Amino acid sequence: MTAYEQFEGHIAELNDILNSISILKWDARTNMPPGGALTRGNQLATLSRIANDYFVSDKTARKLDAVEAEIAGEDKDSYRVRAVQQTRQYYELVKRIPVEVTAKKATLAPISEQVWADAKQNNDFASFVPYLQQMLDLSKEQADAIGYEGHPFDALVFEYEPSATAASLKVLFDELKAGLLPLLKRIVANDKPLEKDLWQREYPLDKQKAFGLEMAKKIGYDVQRGRLDIAPHPFEISFTRNDVRITTRYNLNYLPMALFGTLHETGHALYEQGVDPSLTRSALTTDFLGQYPVGGTSYGAHESQSRLWENQIGRSREFWVVHFDRLREIFPEQMADADPDLMYRSVNRVRPSLIRVEADEVTYNLHIMLRTEIEMGLLDGGLKVADLPDVWNAKMEEYLGVIPPNDSKGVLQDVHWSGGGFGSFPGYTVGNVMSAQFLKAAHEQIPTLDASLKQGDYSPLLGWLQSNVYRHGRAYSANELLERSTGKTLHVQPYLAYLEGKFSQLYGLS
Amino acid sequence: MTAYEQFEGHIAELNDILNSISILKWDARTNMPPGGALTRGNQLATLSRIANDYFVSDKTARKLDAVEAEIAGEDKDSYRVRAVQQTRQYYELVKRIPVEVTAKKATLAPISEQVWADAKQNNDFASFVPYLQQMLDLSKEQADAIGYEGHPFDALVFEYEPSATAASLKVLFDELKAGLLPLLKRIVANDKPLEKDLWQREYPLDKQKAFGLEMAKKIGYDVQRGRLDIAPHPFEISFTRNDVRITTRYNLNYLPMALFGTLHETGHALYEQGVDPSLTRSALTTDFLGQYPVGGTSYGAHESQSRLWENQIGRSREFWVVHFDRLREIFPEQMADADPDLMYRSVNRVRPSLIRVEADEVTYNLHIMLRTEIEMGLLDGGLKVADLPDVWNAKMEEYLGVIPPNDSKGVLQDVHWSGGGFGSFPGYTVGNVMSAQFLKAAHEQIPTLDASLKQGDYSPLLGWLQSNVYRHGRAYSANELLERSTGKTLHVQPYLAYLEGKFSQLYGLS
Repeated sequence: MTAYEQFEGHIAELNDILNSISILKWDARTNMPPGGALTRGNQLATLSRIANDYFVSDKTARKLDAVEAEIAGEDKDSYRVRAVQQTRQYYELVKRIPVEVTAKKATLAPISEQVWADAKQNNDFASFVPYLQQMLDLSKEQADAIGYEGHPFDALVFEYEPSATAASLKVLFDELKAGLLPLLKRIVANDKPLEKDLWQREYPLDKQKAFGLEMAKKIGYDVQRGRLDIAPHPFEISFTRNDVRITTRYNLNYLPMALFGTLHETGHALYEQGVDPSLTRSALTTDFLGQYPVGGTSYGAHESQSRLWENQIGRSREFWVVHFDRLREIFPEQMADADPDLMYRSVNRVRPSLIRVEADEVTYNLHIMLRTEIEMGLLDGGLKVADLPDVWNAKMEEYLGVIPPNDSKGVLQDVHWSGGGFGSFPGYTVGNVMSAQFLKAAHEQIPTLDASLKQGDYSPLLGWLQSNVYRHGRAYSANELLERSTGKTLHVQPYLAYLEGKFSQLYGLS
Repeated sequence: MTAYEQFEGHIAELNDILNSISILKWDARTNMPPGGALTRGNQLATLSRIANDYFVSDKTARKLDAVEAEIAGEDKDSYRVRAVQQTRQYYELVKRIPVEVTAKKATLAPISEQVWADAKQNNDFASFVPYLQQMLDLSKEQADAIGYEGHPFDALVFEYEPSATAASLKVLFDELKAGLLPLLKRIVANDKPLEKDLWQREYPLDKQKAFGLEMAKKIGYDVQRGRLDIAPHPFEISFTRNDVRITTRYNLNYLPMALFGTLHETGHALYEQGVDPSLTRSALTTDFLGQYPVGGTSYGAHESQSRLWENQIGRSREFWVVHFDRLREIFPEQMADADPDLMYRSVNRVRPSLIRVEADEVTYNLHIMLRTEIEMGLLDGGLKVADLPDVWNAKMEEYLGVIPPNDSKGVLQDVHWSGGGFGSFPGYTVGNVMSAQFLKAAHEQIPTLDASLKQGDYSPLLGWLQSNVYRHGRAYSANELLERSTGKTLHVQPYLAYLEGKFSQLYGLS
């Protein structure tokens, strides 16, 4: 066996262990009876420890040394070289993080998450403060161990968005704010209620599921290698490209919740299902940090696909012109007095609101910037944990013009910080920006794309995304993917132009 | 930490890995999309290899040596001593089996199973012969490596039924045949069709599920620590006592399939859910060979509980006197002209038939004996693989008076041999025999048991079984369990008396 084959075999087994952990997690969130939580934690902890020991072992070091010698001089953009590079990079990273810090975070996380859930329930931020403080201290320790040049945030965001830094995000956010804040003002000034409220009617859940799954398949979800289930906090998860599952949640009245949730997770799933089969069980589909679905190169790259399919396709006028009849076939009474235009407007209403996960396309990124700016302040000491509620509310007023009536609907709304997940938020916004760059390039490179989307034929777009994004797995960074397929790295103009075009038309802005 | 605590911690992690494997298997049989099979095999193989390496390591040897020294002189019936003993016994056993044999069996199994499935489909025994021969040869090698005093079968049956040997089974089978064959003749001579065929009507599946689950809960299944799903080949599986799942399959007309399937798997589940909480993640709930649901001490002990709850409780007259009204409430039209007595007779019809899994209580064990006798012949060379169809058909005629029209309904009907699972069949019959011993003892020790069963109160019986069987996990062997709770080791009289009593009454035999 060559050194590369030995390296491949070694990583393939690590991939198996990490995917097994994902299967246990999927089960815990979809099927596990309540009593099972007690020992599922032990099972997850043991497999995680085994994965970690396996990865940071001398065996990995020896195999890396040998394979690096063997592939020296090969094409630096080849999958082989990238697989070795990625493994080396994460091997050094994981080795730098002290075992005690990882262990303390892992032990504290479930307790801290429970305290957060209770605090949110009881609107009691004070009770959460000591846990958030501990998580912050551990994360700072982690950042110091990993090392950084500019801002401690850089060390942490690397786990989620390797191309981003505090400085690059500041530039990105400023450019976005310059476009988004004035657009939002114009929309709010022109807003008026829709003539009919479709979301006070009842949509039986089994029919919602049938329609959602039909649309997911229509855009390309392969159910021979996937399935749709229910979960209170929807997610997509992959156990190799052969088994990529999605979940959604249902509301009897508010049909968009399950439908766009399904399309969102389908976007993630298309990424995973579209990875080159030769990368199965390879380093380029291995999430060495156990942070996110296997396959994608970053949170942002992944989110670019969920957002693209959910928003730029699923919430487009063309989509509803093609598919409204089918929706009315399934819900004849509920949709009797509706039409594609009303549907289009009903799923694109812009309103500044308190809750991130319910936000529309225009306001969503403002929620993300607020969180990211707070994280940076906490990490560099500019902000104290105790001051968070005030800072949160002030920023909400500044960006969105609304003030939370209590902390449950404000600073306590998201779970992320309770587990010490600092650095994960910017991926959502990076994804939004990327999605518009990809779609613009696809339109430029496929002159008939517009026509095929108008006919409800998504295969040309899916094909373009597969060859330019999905198939590469983690071989190229988010910026490399953008550059290779669009000629430019991350930049906000296509995204702002998309929002300006869509919402000017929808709100009759001049 | 004491040596015992270190030993406990070491085994707890092995238990976590083995339970994770079980979760992957459950998922593969209930939820996995078809495409997932491709890489699920890799994930299972990797975790199995990790479990095996973990168990047969020097670390296990060192911890065993240390703990054996520490507990020397303690009560030999204590859970502590038994936990160490069990671990030592299986450690030595697994170490004796050559790695190559295990690996060859594991690699060949999925291929052989596919060849068997095709052979069964096409009634083509010849195509299966070379695979069956290889599996037989590997199993003989395994038996030789493990070692045995009497018959090579002894080495293999140990994995499933440690108390049994070829010689002890021959005695058991002869005693059973002496009772069963004459009883069956008398029944067949007295058989006449029932006045109404309940199983030509339609029973909607969701209502079947509701009734089945209600009955499962009624006999004691805790759904806070369990759930019921659909599987083509129903099974029970446990990921510790906190998460014990059952599956069943549905037939629109033949309501007994799902109902008694559910009660059968519930019996297995009650065993698992009833294990002493202190044994969670211990050696006494660890299936070191990865053969069977965690917790039970043997196939037979486990099957004694599925059979007891399915047959001796679920197919009893008392059960239907209590629960028939509820069944009719759920199926008012289908059950309009039925009554408890018709229901009782409809689920206890005895007819010699070709297929083991469809056999009634009287003929079932004859199917098992036939298979076990053939396995013994194959292992000691008395039988050749090529002769199996003829031998099978001759024995079917001798024991049951029916001859399969083809091999698909004969020698090819069961999957077991394709995977090399020689030695697993006798557990079914041992279980039947044990179940009657347990129930007899429970009646003797709880004078009010009869009355409580007649009222549909199963808690006294469940409580007795929990204290005498379930709670001990794998601490005591099947024969020890019998002796401790009934005063006698395995013997056929209570079982034959139960069948004689029940079917004499049902068939009006003199």
